[in-house]
Amino acid sequence: MKIVDLRIHPIAIADPPLRSSYGLHAPYALRTIVELVSDEGIVGICETYGGDAQVRQIEALRQQILGVNPYRLTGFLLPMVEGKVDAGADRSQTYHVPGENPLDATTRTYAAIEVACLDLIGKTVGQPVCDLIGGRVRDAVPFSAYPFYKHAGGGGEDADAREDEYGEALSPEEIVRQVKGMIAKYGFGSIKFKAGVLEPDMEIETIRKLYKALGPKVPLRIDPNSAWTVETSVRVGKALAEELGRGGYLEDPTAGMENMSAVRKQLLAEGIDTPLASNVAVTCFADIPQSVKLDAVQIILCDHHYWGGMRQVQHLARLSKTFGIGLSMHSNSHIGVSLMAMAHVAAATPHLTYACDTHYPWQSAKDEVVLGGRVPIVGGCVRIPDKPGLGVELDYDQVARGVERYKTCKYRKRDDELEMRKHIDPNWTRKLPRW
Amino acid sequence: MKIVDLRIHPIAIADPPLRSSYGLHAPYALRTIVELVSDEGIVGICETYGGDAQVRQIEALRQQILGVNPYRLTGFLLPMVEGKVDAGADRSQTYHVPGENPLDATTRTYAAIEVACLDLIGKTVGQPVCDLIGGRVRDAVPFSAYPFYKHAGGGGEDADAREDEYGEALSPEEIVRQVKGMIAKYGFGSIKFKAGVLEPDMEIETIRKLYKALGPKVPLRIDPNSAWTVETSVRVGKALAEELGRGGYLEDPTAGMENMSAVRKQLLAEGIDTPLASNVAVTCFADIPQSVKLDAVQIILCDHHYWGGMRQVQHLARLSKTFGIGLSMHSNSHIGVSLMAMAHVAAATPHLTYACDTHYPWQSAKDEVVLGGRVPIVGGCVRIPDKPGLGVELDYDQVARGVERYKTCKYRKRDDELEMRKHIDPNWTRKLPRW
Repeated sequence: MKIVDLRIHPIAIADPPLRSSYGLHAPYALRTIVELVSDEGIVGICETYGGDAQVRQIEALRQQILGVNPYRLTGFLLPMVEGKVDAGADRSQTYHVPGENPLDATTRTYAAIEVACLDLIGKTVGQPVCDLIGGRVRDAVPFSAYPFYKHAGGGGEDADAREDEYGEALSPEEIVRQVKGMIAKYGFGSIKFKAGVLEPDMEIETIRKLYKALGPKVPLRIDPNSAWTVETSVRVGKALAEELGRGGYLEDPTAGMENMSAVRKQLLAEGIDTPLASNVAVTCFADIPQSVKLDAVQIILCDHHYWGGMRQVQHLARLSKTFGIGLSMHSNSHIGVSLMAMAHVAAATPHLTYACDTHYPWQSAKDEVVLGGRVPIVGGCVRIPDKPGLGVELDYDQVARGVERYKTCKYRKRDDELEMRKHIDPNWTRKLPRW
Repeated sequence: MKIVDLRIHPIAIADPPLRSSYGLHAPYALRTIVELVSDEGIVGICETYGGDAQVRQIEALRQQILGVNPYRLTGFLLPMVEGKVDAGADRSQTYHVPGENPLDATTRTYAAIEVACLDLIGKTVGQPVCDLIGGRVRDAVPFSAYPFYKHAGGGGEDADAREDEYGEALSPEEIVRQVKGMIAKYGFGSIKFKAGVLEPDMEIETIRKLYKALGPKVPLRIDPNSAWTVETSVRVGKALAEELGRGGYLEDPTAGMENMSAVRKQLLAEGIDTPLASNVAVTCFADIPQSVKLDAVQIILCDHHYWGGMRQVQHLARLSKTFGIGLSMHSNSHIGVSLMAMAHVAAATPHLTYACDTHYPWQSAKDEVVLGGRVPIVGGCVRIPDKPGLGVELDYDQVARGVERYKTCKYRKRDDELEMRKHIDPNWTRKLPRW
């Protein structure tokens, strides 16, 4: 068994004008679909970050991939994630949107190849991916709703614009409406709210209104992507002690390990043990010793896309469990192939103590490349289907449409700051801390 | 694909009268061979600790094993290693020989099932086990020679006695002769010397003679299994700074995390950074946070047999790398099936910074259950063969002989202290620290 072809499809998917402390989502998000074809004619697939740089990084591995047994390829390439690249480099995402950090380019690229190999192996032997990497510990993986402040519009440009399913949301009331819509449609049981956009008091008010609307049984998380000072972070943590204290968390309130640690200490001193979560301060194994030492982060958001694949996420999970650190999962704008990969690794990772993030509700059927259409989220969960590999195949017509959109849309990397200046405020710059 | 039969073979293998701080090896060591048979008639095997208790623990899982897909069984049973059992329990092997610690019974049992499942899967799909668990990073796995002080005799009893290949060794000179014999036969490139038996000055002298005989390019390790006080440990560490300092280590010189930490601190204060290794102070994930905090152990000896299987060892390796902890591998008296499993997990674990321990040279062809005879160690290494699964099959005649020996030998658990009293000194008790 060997790999005889590598196919790389850069695609663009419509993305609504979502806001975060990084700026504004562009009308299209970029993704890459990768196919590995075996000499038996079986195809393994994956989805990863997009844009020309990501395509080049995968393309550069072509000669190392072709002719190799997919069971062995992940071992051959393992120095990409366990080599010197990991040794202490500052890989923080404080100043990079995920997928645009040059320091995790190799782990992102390795992950794409690993997932495609696992899908290829699974489809060859007739077993789901989660059962290749240790065996599932759950059949259904919980995801959380991911409300954003947003402008009007459903993403896409001109004649290719998408329906604005959730409408504009720039106030607490509109976020509540947005969340209710998502819960009605997908049955989510926890909420991850993207903050760092309006004045902190407005965001506190947003969480309070969500808490009032949903009750204490729905865990709430708030994530301003490092937009706040230590002082503001502590103020928000105190104000929302009750609302975030029931299974929720405060995610990356402020930039830098020392500041996160200071927030933790000050909150604990006030008797508030709302955990701090992170996918900014801690984004690679090399970040963890300092985080443990400083008690900077109590919950790590894993993401197989940039942590170096599914097995590295499982290693991270065991490490986190060992040090009493909780585990959640990060998401970036994605479609169904990534969603299934996220579900498979989560299914085979016991220490996943929180529902995973997903941007999936922000994408639409028009952009889905999965054969048969969008992956169902029911009761807030993605079920592991009784199908081999990731459990999904490609709709090649849809892939072709995505590639065509990529060619015509002119976006080649994610730049939320530029989008802010183009559409909202010509003088906007990202400022950390902003409040 | 499902498992339709579980076969458990308790066997006894001859073991020479080796000495350690635990006491004396009995004439027979006990092992268990496990077979999982699939509905396609393919057989997955493993070897684990022996004795009646181990057999009972595996037997107790029969109803959870039969009828289950081997790809999924490891997930179903994962709470055995990632459940509450791990939560902070003191699983130290200070007062238990490996395999006789009731607190790691579940992780030992899980590991046996995991390895047999992986062998079954590998033999079903035609892939070596190392390539099922991430892919090999090396094709040949280095092992170290494992000299012991020993009495005359090759193991076995009466007419079943084995040839005494290396002879008595109760002095530095005899250990040098023993090591030279092992190197000549197997080509080992590093030496792990079992100490804690003679006066510390004699053991210092033993290492010095080995260093003189082998030169500075052969890493030397000394392991008294916690027999020393902090003071003695520091004295030995200082005396052997040069000899252990070239890629070797000081393994479990003293009992307990605090004592290990004190030895480390005192040696560092003297400018000696010989690392401390352990398979006694740190034997499970729950031990690691304290060890990191105290800098008690700089090298962990993994062992898939009691750490909960191959994937847990891989998790441990990534954790160790993250915290700058080295990784070596522990061994217990074993034959070829365990040796191959050790080689496979080592082959698929990048962060294995030291040659693995093995007792294999102490066992003989007469006890080997591997079809075709003993696994070759050449140039100090076990090569991963181009065969599926673990790369070995059972010789059922030999298994039957091992089972017969088990029935007649009367040993049902390992008790080195009892053996000391029976054969060497009727008043002997294990005393920690002894010196």
